[in-house]
Amino acid sequence: MPKIKEPTLLLNTDICKRNIRSMNNRVKQWGGYFRPHFKTHQSAQIGEWYKSEGVESITVSSFKMARYFALNGWNDITVALTATILNVDIINDLASKINLNILVEDNATIYALEAALDHPVGVFIKADTGYHRTGIDVSDLSVVKFVLNELKDKKKLIFIGFLTHAGNTYKCKKESEIIEITQNSLNKFLSLKAFLKDDFPLMQLSWGDTPSCSVFDNFYGVDEFRPGNFVFYDYMQSLIGSCMLTDIAVCLAAPVLAVHPVRNEMVMHAGAVHLSKDFVVLEDGTKSYGKAIRISNGKWDVDTVIGEVTSLSQEHGVISLKQNYYSDLNPGDVIGILPVHSCLTANLMKEFLTEDGNLISMME
Amino acid sequence: MPKIKEPTLLLNTDICKRNIRSMNNRVKQWGGYFRPHFKTHQSAQIGEWYKSEGVESITVSSFKMARYFALNGWNDITVALTATILNVDIINDLASKINLNILVEDNATIYALEAALDHPVGVFIKADTGYHRTGIDVSDLSVVKFVLNELKDKKKLIFIGFLTHAGNTYKCKKESEIIEITQNSLNKFLSLKAFLKDDFPLMQLSWGDTPSCSVFDNFYGVDEFRPGNFVFYDYMQSLIGSCMLTDIAVCLAAPVLAVHPVRNEMVMHAGAVHLSKDFVVLEDGTKSYGKAIRISNGKWDVDTVIGEVTSLSQEHGVISLKQNYYSDLNPGDVIGILPVHSCLTANLMKEFLTEDGNLISMME
Repeated sequence: MPKIKEPTLLLNTDICKRNIRSMNNRVKQWGGYFRPHFKTHQSAQIGEWYKSEGVESITVSSFKMARYFALNGWNDITVALTATILNVDIINDLASKINLNILVEDNATIYALEAALDHPVGVFIKADTGYHRTGIDVSDLSVVKFVLNELKDKKKLIFIGFLTHAGNTYKCKKESEIIEITQNSLNKFLSLKAFLKDDFPLMQLSWGDTPSCSVFDNFYGVDEFRPGNFVFYDYMQSLIGSCMLTDIAVCLAAPVLAVHPVRNEMVMHAGAVHLSKDFVVLEDGTKSYGKAIRISNGKWDVDTVIGEVTSLSQEHGVISLKQNYYSDLNPGDVIGILPVHSCLTANLMKEFLTEDGNLISMME
Repeated sequence: MPKIKEPTLLLNTDICKRNIRSMNNRVKQWGGYFRPHFKTHQSAQIGEWYKSEGVESITVSSFKMARYFALNGWNDITVALTATILNVDIINDLASKINLNILVEDNATIYALEAALDHPVGVFIKADTGYHRTGIDVSDLSVVKFVLNELKDKKKLIFIGFLTHAGNTYKCKKESEIIEITQNSLNKFLSLKAFLKDDFPLMQLSWGDTPSCSVFDNFYGVDEFRPGNFVFYDYMQSLIGSCMLTDIAVCLAAPVLAVHPVRNEMVMHAGAVHLSKDFVVLEDGTKSYGKAIRISNGKWDVDTVIGEVTSLSQEHGVISLKQNYYSDLNPGDVIGILPVHSCLTANLMKEFLTEDGNLISMME
């Protein structure tokens, strides 16, 4: 293990591989197809661990990411970001090489893409089942039909089905809330199949989000599952109820810069450019940008809590030490931070250091 | 101008150069030394625009950034992040090549660095003048003396003076608040000089932060100024009172993905991995991650407001359209977002596109 001198994102490969195996098994038990989202790790090497579990198809959040994974041997990719006519060149390029699926949600784009594409691509209609970020509201069946009518006879855009992301589960605070939101969204989503089964008997339903896939078990009727964050989980997911702290596979190692016993604080070298400014609000009202714990020789222990990261500037973070905490930690020591949102932290750090001292790289 | 197809950080070079010239002139008027912070742009090419104004010395926020700018011709650099014994190798390397200044704030680190360094480096003591993030509280003169006593006779660590960052100005909502906080911090800071002038007649005071340097004018007694954000400014700085919207030199171009007239929203391809999750709270209580405006052919106009970015996920942003806003914008059109925090947005985007279609790169 190399000596850590600057903010470094540690990856516990055992936990990570266990998370992959566990989610793969869950999806198998439901009889579903696993198309994990790769936006969290963005790493060809971590992608190989999915291949070892038999995974052949993936989801990404941008065309740039699709290109990266296509270059790294993945030939069945869904880009889960609504496509527009601006993406024609890269769609044509990717669709000539791999099985590419895209997302649409408006008739003008469908019309324009059909005219501009050289190669056929699979198409999902983005469905809004309650998150209200993007997609067609599935309760409005007249709009669903209006878009399907535009799409159904196209030669380049091959209708596959509907795709939803019940991202409102991210606002949950416990398992029972996740289950309630999931059931509501799912009911809306499944009604699409009932409504359209005569005209589109092969239509697929694709489902996303880590919280629901981690705790819900009754997905009968859904064909495909696209969770992503579960590969690392994070502090936020542990508070939502998706995982335990011991399921978190990444931890930011950060040097201590100063200790301020008078105000019960510690300052570390790790800020918004390492962790991101995403935060959670704890039960007692504390706004936390990460949970500070001890690490030793690149290994962390979630039971050795130091405190919460209560403020972040560009390169600095302030840790409010837990009550009556006595510290033997000094400037130059290295502590660990369980990140609030592992997707954003990984995206900033761009590489992982494993317990064996190996560096795992991500997409540039 | 190349056609914009994905989130792209636009840079208006005229505004940027005007901001540099204007701040350089302000510091000259005060009779101060300008050592601008380069953490906002992190770009060797933009650094050259400072050189044209006669700037010879800079500030950076990490040793990694110091190495980048040293490789790009800068030979007088202050690393404004408290040093620890972990940084010995890079300090030795840099100090053998350039005039390097570092920050310290505790005796154990001073002792350890003195023993481990091969080359002399300039040293500032980090002073807390009210921000309470890091540094020695300047009101506590016994601690000041305690640290100075450790530092004063060292052979490798050459005491230069005190450095402060009155980052609490970032919480201001108008010019009068900035002036009040600045005056309070400044009074504390200047009292150091009065207290120590007999023993350390050459002692320097180094002052940071864009809000105070943008609106305050009575810095008599301060030797050096290190603002950084002013190079681009941003939406937050305009609300703090440091600048006008027309002084903002960067704007994120983002494709529209969907328009939802029913809920008066638009969805764009630009999320937390482009803008960062930093936000401002507007007067009416709206939490905004950026101000959405129109752009045309790579040029933006701050008077053509579309709405506010009210939520961000990894790659998506939702814009709440301003009241009674009628939109002729459609999926595939490109809009502009004035970023809340230009330092974090630039750090994520890693390059700038100028109005002439040139790409300006940043530190990797």
